[in-house]
Amino acid sequence: MERLQKQIAFLLEIDKLKKVFRRNYISDGSRTENDAEHSWYFAVAAIVLGEIAVEKVDLFRVLKMALIHDVVEIDAGDVFIYDEEARKGQAEREQSAAQRLFGLLPEDQAAAFLDLWREFEEFQTPESRYARAIDRIAALILNYASQGKSWKRHGVSKAQILAVNERIALGSPALWDYVRDLIEDAAQRGYIDR
Amino acid sequence: MERLQKQIAFLLEIDKLKKVFRRNYISDGSRTENDAEHSWYFAVAAIVLGEIAVEKVDLFRVLKMALIHDVVEIDAGDVFIYDEEARKGQAEREQSAAQRLFGLLPEDQAAAFLDLWREFEEFQTPESRYARAIDRIAALILNYASQGKSWKRHGVSKAQILAVNERIALGSPALWDYVRDLIEDAAQRGYIDR
Repeated sequence: MERLQKQIAFLLEIDKLKKVFRRNYISDGSRTENDAEHSWYFAVAAIVLGEIAVEKVDLFRVLKMALIHDVVEIDAGDVFIYDEEARKGQAEREQSAAQRLFGLLPEDQAAAFLDLWREFEEFQTPESRYARAIDRIAALILNYASQGKSWKRHGVSKAQILAVNERIALGSPALWDYVRDLIEDAAQRGYIDR
Repeated sequence: MERLQKQIAFLLEIDKLKKVFRRNYISDGSRTENDAEHSWYFAVAAIVLGEIAVEKVDLFRVLKMALIHDVVEIDAGDVFIYDEEARKGQAEREQSAAQRLFGLLPEDQAAAFLDLWREFEEFQTPESRYARAIDRIAALILNYASQGKSWKRHGVSKAQILAVNERIALGSPALWDYVRDLIEDAAQRGYIDR
């Protein structure tokens, strides 16, 4: 019962992820996406695109990573991937957030969730490489669908988009080929300003 | 490449789940929850509460169910669980929706997603019984946290709440014990009108 109380307390706390908003828009461009929606979208994309991973991955582990990877942003906030200034100190803020938030869980589960989160951040395993590629494609297809609304609003260049996303190739060269074409097409359609 | 095009088309279509709103509120009562957020919340709860399942369950399969169980509501809409009138014909609407939406995927994946969705709906396997229990608890703790805002707004009685949720016991008797106490406590605090 004490375990269950802790688990419920954690669930109530992470409900706040529904109020952390990202810079990218949902596909129709009507509003930005929140972290809870993004985490769902990322997880579904990880299932649907599973076969495209270059290495054999444990998809169950990838799903767990997808579902909890942004929880730290409840305390640390969302930082725009193209905003290098704002990213300073973000790793430390997220580390403290992970300790506090996952620390609400029973000890064994807190450790397991911290491991999953660190694995995603450290980017050293096949699962984390695939997960990062999917995290990126999930945002890219929405940016494309919303005619580059976020890229334009924040003055993001094609060179920046290519640089930030090229790590997709480490998780899936096939997906990176697709993404390069998508970015090229976006530029030609005027979805990217420069 | 043709497979990938179909997979991306499916992902773009299901982005619409972020615009399907449920009757329950997020924990602070500031607004209702959408289906994408709910699906994420359900999936995280399924991981966190995994040990409470009465039968041994394949949690990977449960996660996949959680992530796609509401996709049909893009076409069929969300029907309030306490609204028996509105539920009429909903099964047929959801069946058509499942065919159209999962049908956007490559054939093998469409069949696999349809299977997952049907398994959840038919409620005949350990995984579906556990998943349904978690689907319910995810809404209940938000209803409790928001001081019964949705129950009150829609005039839901304690007897209705007990009746709709008692199937939780089939997935987890321990969770049902917890839920009965939660509902009793909610009634005493005045979160339920009658």
